[in-house]
Amino acid sequence: MKHRKQRVGIWLIGACGGVGGTVALGLAALAKRLSGSTGLVTALPELEGIDWASPGDFVLGGHEIRSQTLVESVRHLHTESGVFSAAMIHSCTATLRKFQRNIVPGVLLGSPRAIEAIADSEAVTVVKCGAEAIEAIAADLVAFRKKNRLDHVIVVNVASTEPPLKAHPSHRSYTKLSKELVKKRGCVLPSSSLYALGAFAADCSCINFTPSAGSRIPAIEEYAAECDVLFGGRDGKTGETLLKSVLAPLFATRHLHLHSWVGHNVLGNRDGQVLSDPVVKASKLKSKDGLVGQIVGYKPQSRTSIEYVPSLNDWKVAWDFIHFEGFLGTKMNMQFVWTGSDSVLAAPLVIDLVRLTHHEFVNGRRGRMDHLGCFFKDPEGTTDHNYFNQWRRLTEHLLA
Amino acid sequence: MKHRKQRVGIWLIGACGGVGGTVALGLAALAKRLSGSTGLVTALPELEGIDWASPGDFVLGGHEIRSQTLVESVRHLHTESGVFSAAMIHSCTATLRKFQRNIVPGVLLGSPRAIEAIADSEAVTVVKCGAEAIEAIAADLVAFRKKNRLDHVIVVNVASTEPPLKAHPSHRSYTKLSKELVKKRGCVLPSSSLYALGAFAADCSCINFTPSAGSRIPAIEEYAAECDVLFGGRDGKTGETLLKSVLAPLFATRHLHLHSWVGHNVLGNRDGQVLSDPVVKASKLKSKDGLVGQIVGYKPQSRTSIEYVPSLNDWKVAWDFIHFEGFLGTKMNMQFVWTGSDSVLAAPLVIDLVRLTHHEFVNGRRGRMDHLGCFFKDPEGTTDHNYFNQWRRLTEHLLA
Amino acid sequence: MKHRKQRVGIWLIGACGGVGGTVALGLAALAKRLSGSTGLVTALPELEGIDWASPGDFVLGGHEIRSQTLVESVRHLHTESGVFSAAMIHSCTATLRKFQRNIVPGVLLGSPRAIEAIADSEAVTVVKCGAEAIEAIAADLVAFRKKNRLDHVIVVNVASTEPPLKAHPSHRSYTKLSKELVKKRGCVLPSSSLYALGAFAADCSCINFTPSAGSRIPAIEEYAAECDVLFGGRDGKTGETLLKSVLAPLFATRHLHLHSWVGHNVLGNRDGQVLSDPVVKASKLKSKDGLVGQIVGYKPQSRTSIEYVPSLNDWKVAWDFIHFEGFLGTKMNMQFVWTGSDSVLAAPLVIDLVRLTHHEFVNGRRGRMDHLGCFFKDPEGTTDHNYFNQWRRLTEHLLA
Amino acid sequence: MKHRKQRVGIWLIGACGGVGGTVALGLAALAKRLSGSTGLVTALPELEGIDWASPGDFVLGGHEIRSQTLVESVRHLHTESGVFSAAMIHSCTATLRKFQRNIVPGVLLGSPRAIEAIADSEAVTVVKCGAEAIEAIAADLVAFRKKNRLDHVIVVNVASTEPPLKAHPSHRSYTKLSKELVKKRGCVLPSSSLYALGAFAADCSCINFTPSAGSRIPAIEEYAAECDVLFGGRDGKTGETLLKSVLAPLFATRHLHLHSWVGHNVLGNRDGQVLSDPVVKASKLKSKDGLVGQIVGYKPQSRTSIEYVPSLNDWKVAWDFIHFEGFLGTKMNMQFVWTGSDSVLAAPLVIDLVRLTHHEFVNGRRGRMDHLGCFFKDPEGTTDHNYFNQWRRLTEHLLA
Repeated sequence: MKHRKQRVGIWLIGACGGVGGTVALGLAALAKRLSGSTGLVTALPELEGIDWASPGDFVLGGHEIRSQTLVESVRHLHTESGVFSAAMIHSCTATLRKFQRNIVPGVLLGSPRAIEAIADSEAVTVVKCGAEAIEAIAADLVAFRKKNRLDHVIVVNVASTEPPLKAHPSHRSYTKLSKELVKKRGCVLPSSSLYALGAFAADCSCINFTPSAGSRIPAIEEYAAECDVLFGGRDGKTGETLLKSVLAPLFATRHLHLHSWVGHNVLGNRDGQVLSDPVVKASKLKSKDGLVGQIVGYKPQSRTSIEYVPSLNDWKVAWDFIHFEGFLGTKMNMQFVWTGSDSVLAAPLVIDLVRLTHHEFVNGRRGRMDHLGCFFKDPEGTTDHNYFNQWRRLTEHLLA
Repeated sequence: MKHRKQRVGIWLIGACGGVGGTVALGLAALAKRLSGSTGLVTALPELEGIDWASPGDFVLGGHEIRSQTLVESVRHLHTESGVFSAAMIHSCTATLRKFQRNIVPGVLLGSPRAIEAIADSEAVTVVKCGAEAIEAIAADLVAFRKKNRLDHVIVVNVASTEPPLKAHPSHRSYTKLSKELVKKRGCVLPSSSLYALGAFAADCSCINFTPSAGSRIPAIEEYAAECDVLFGGRDGKTGETLLKSVLAPLFATRHLHLHSWVGHNVLGNRDGQVLSDPVVKASKLKSKDGLVGQIVGYKPQSRTSIEYVPSLNDWKVAWDFIHFEGFLGTKMNMQFVWTGSDSVLAAPLVIDLVRLTHHEFVNGRRGRMDHLGCFFKDPEGTTDHNYFNQWRRLTEHLLA
Repeated sequence: MKHRKQRVGIWLIGACGGVGGTVALGLAALAKRLSGSTGLVTALPELEGIDWASPGDFVLGGHEIRSQTLVESVRHLHTESGVFSAAMIHSCTATLRKFQRNIVPGVLLGSPRAIEAIADSEAVTVVKCGAEAIEAIAADLVAFRKKNRLDHVIVVNVASTEPPLKAHPSHRSYTKLSKELVKKRGCVLPSSSLYALGAFAADCSCINFTPSAGSRIPAIEEYAAECDVLFGGRDGKTGETLLKSVLAPLFATRHLHLHSWVGHNVLGNRDGQVLSDPVVKASKLKSKDGLVGQIVGYKPQSRTSIEYVPSLNDWKVAWDFIHFEGFLGTKMNMQFVWTGSDSVLAAPLVIDLVRLTHHEFVNGRRGRMDHLGCFFKDPEGTTDHNYFNQWRRLTEHLLA
Repeated sequence: MKHRKQRVGIWLIGACGGVGGTVALGLAALAKRLSGSTGLVTALPELEGIDWASPGDFVLGGHEIRSQTLVESVRHLHTESGVFSAAMIHSCTATLRKFQRNIVPGVLLGSPRAIEAIADSEAVTVVKCGAEAIEAIAADLVAFRKKNRLDHVIVVNVASTEPPLKAHPSHRSYTKLSKELVKKRGCVLPSSSLYALGAFAADCSCINFTPSAGSRIPAIEEYAAECDVLFGGRDGKTGETLLKSVLAPLFATRHLHLHSWVGHNVLGNRDGQVLSDPVVKASKLKSKDGLVGQIVGYKPQSRTSIEYVPSLNDWKVAWDFIHFEGFLGTKMNMQFVWTGSDSVLAAPLVIDLVRLTHHEFVNGRRGRMDHLGCFFKDPEGTTDHNYFNQWRRLTEHLLA
């Protein structure tokens, strides 16, 4: 009841990318009733008893390191990838421009070269050390909250993937880490983690929709606990991995032995471009592999590869070849091809996660949200990748 | 404990077809430890606490209307479809021949022309009316039990698919039905139902692994209750439909709207041959369609087609095209191709169902088994086709 | 040289369907240089020595039995199927409206119920017999030529598929046929053939892009010879069948034995809707089957099925499963999935055929055009379906 | 005529691998008429006027660096990959054992680590330098010819793929090369080239069925001309690349613009194992890429990747995603999946190439065979990869 009147801020790291643009367009279109709620888990009939924040309750802002705007982002998606309608974009342009005024330059400290390469220099806040980055980020968030008189700000990382985290001793305790972060050279954290620290410092909730480290570092979790904030992640489960978490339980419960599960992904958006850097790709593949083994209880051969195919733009196509053995040693196989628009698959989940986080917030809960596993490739606080177990956990949490 | 020592009969209707042959070979190979238990649900680690009947506890028999033997059936599968090894067949031949001695001519009364066409005249028991057929079937079962000193006989229908049941007023009560069945012309029941009545009359349990009517007629269920026997069905879920029951819940819980789910099946075994008769095919398609709508709660366009491709022999290949809509009206699609050996997928489920039925038997339960939904395309006593709900129901029943 | 200055009319039967709209938009866009020539065979570098008619040389007109306009047709394709850009449509609207003034009501005589069902009564010219229909059609063509001062009018049938032709004795000679056509009841010709006769009577060239009978009747070919006109067909080869004509030669020349070639097509446009009538579908399937056997020299099992999936709109998806045998009896398979926009695949071929026909015209050739086989599923005057032989024949004809 | 009576030796480098075993079994089975000639190009009806060597005219021998025998190789293919029949193997075992007596240890000099890793020490002839290796190889060939009284010996390299050739100045002239080859350290040639030199030194013909360098080095071609021998290659075209050379001409002649052609291969045999070494893989990928660009006349994005999936054994599965643009900027796609047994696809081509080489031999021709392009991924003496041009060239050569 109460939280209906609350004003909720969504702060996107990488605000004007494909996912950010689609989130913004979606919020505008839903508020104007230009579109139905298909794709939103929180709009399912079985969850309609919950008093979710309405699309119109949200104010969008964010950090961006490129000069592209939200309107340019969705127009580009429309003309190049054939998603959305010109009419919908037209009707939502004013709202998107309003959101745009909340978007400010991001920081590059701790970003890999592949991300630096796509940044525009005017769109970057230059900082000297990690501590300064965190401070700048927190200041941006506080300003956003104040200007828009928001009750709750939820930071969502939808930026490009970073390379795998390099371990550093200071990651183990917040005291050590904060000492490292004031050093001028060689930041020990990737920017995703700096953003998480900035969010917590500003008393915001934080969702990591990417495979980057974000808050998944003991020292940062320690700080989050101190700040008494909500957080969750990581790496939105939108396509091939989602299907793995749905199909692997079938092979497990039918006692069909998986020999090999080979996945090959082609995709053409900025995520694909950044992933064509092999160092970054490693991070993504780590997040995608492994879960089949967890579900079936043994280690089938599992290989996932990714190719950047620019002509696909926002579309991604995944081919999976599943080689399995049935009764009396008989080898059989299943193949699937998943063809989806990356941004369009991801954006509603971002809105769902924001609603779910705000639902916790108004119910007075704080800390790591372990019930959100069905949304993530590499979920917090659980090793259960079985989609249907994850789904049950979510609904039991919500409907308890 | 107790039931370990029990001797259990498996009586197959259509004993020497691909499924029957594979069940027989599987029992022999498992008893001799020539093969692992892959493909057997009842051999899953999470069910290992249950005191299942062992492969060696089973004696196989059945009705068959063709002159083919079990050994010929498995050799044919090996040479034409490339399944099993010559060595395994060789080692099991003696057991298969022993089983063969329990296989007797079946009845054709009530069978469609497509099934008559594949029958051998010497392998058929000629009967004048339904009542006589039931009597003959029951006599065969009683003889089997007696000769092999069996504690429990479970009849499993693995014969070819019959056309959809033609409704008749007598189907509503057993009293009326029994009066009809003594008439010499125009049997009101298909043979699958005569076999079910014969099984019940002989105090046997009965599983319908086909889409045929079997015991799914009020008058027959009435009689089953009277006889206080175990029964369940129908239509083993081994491929495309199994995947539908796994994937549709994903689309449902992600709130992705299904526009259309088109399935195209090619298969080359006797089942495919009989299904190439359009009247029979109707029955199969009825059993395969509909379940997606039940799971998602609305009716997407759903079309399933089947082609008989003799060169595939026991292999079936299914291509499914799933056209769905995501956020903001975006259309996307998923396709899968399932390539499996029909008999090899079905046979372990037959053994599972027999074990599960015997488990009920030794635990003193009787009547319709509504917890077996995950095994069937058109399950008894439930409209829930969501595989993971079905799986939960099974495990809760077993592990309660 | 000379024909550059010639004005050429394109007269489409079914002018405002998806193919007609795309042809009109394409001509307009090419004339305004809003689009490159991708998809046009006549724009290939190896044919650039030929003095093709330019996009701006063409005037479009046609018959239509529905009230939809060209502009509505392309807008519908854009919004529902995601093809073209709003900007391109906008820039071409004036030209499309100009073309629209040349579009007049068609005749329904001889059309199947499935086509009648989609007609708008105001858009139909009512006629009493075949002869009257032919006269009305010819009058429309003569008026079009006169009004637009055209040197050459080429009629192209891009209307919906008709059911297979019912043979009639009068089909054997034009004298007999013309006597039948004045009868008031029971027209012995389908409307595609009435249109062909109307075209020839008005001294127009005629291309049959559909599987309908059109001029493929001895009596009509006799009349075409009398009129000394150009004609060719039939059934544009745009997708699955095109691939068959490309891949079957591979299997033939590698001596790989085809057991079975099963194709399953799903499509959502008006063609699909009309084809969901089983009588009409028979015609299409006849045109699609058979060619593999011609290419390889024996008859593999060949099955093609079609499903109407409205959510696909103009898109069609074909899955083909090719089961073949290699060395020492080894069975292997190839599968392909072809995903294309039906109208967009067809329209450039229509423009190519018009250019190719006009090229013959200005070079003084008349009669049946047997060198166009690579464009058709069921080509005139040849039984050679091997795409590469067909392609060679075309280029040898053009470059001789 | 004459050459019927000629005795022809086939000498395989890598004699007891999957291809070698299948060639041996195939020759034996064909000679005994246990199998038809499916898969053999030289058995096509259109080439039946040519007086090919008969299966019984061939004697097989070869070099092998592992201890596996031909019989073990085909048995392994049968049990693990399900190809051939036990009966066929049984009937051919005596012939295979006879062939086995002609198989001698190979040399490892110049082989990559991945190949060294699979060698058995007893099966290797130790040599001190390239010249010694060539001498040993030539001696083996001379002994084989003499012992079996052969008129013509054709060496075919069917060994595992080597890494890409490292250029060396001595590769430019035979004089320089021969001086290098006597040096004791750092052989400047890979073993495939040493085998080619050995073959030429022994006056044998030589076919390179692999992507390795073989005779594709100016100095070696110079020597081949000196020796006046027949040679050809390289890299047998059996699957994905074959399809590229068939399908790319379609896109070219339809003027459909290829944006991207992504291929992903999974395979499980020794070739796959050796290819899982990234250095070796580079060689294979080089041979597979590029040809699409040659055919269409521009450079679409082209990526081919390979994964070693041991559970597939001799089977390989290739998924290709072809992203293309049609009329008015419309993007569409084609996908195919090719599922074949690697050895069974390759072996008949080896027999074809041997027959074709011997056909040249008996007709008095010598030198590089440029008419064999349709058999190779990277053909000698031509840059034309269009399969149908290649096929025409072959048939014109043979039927001239």
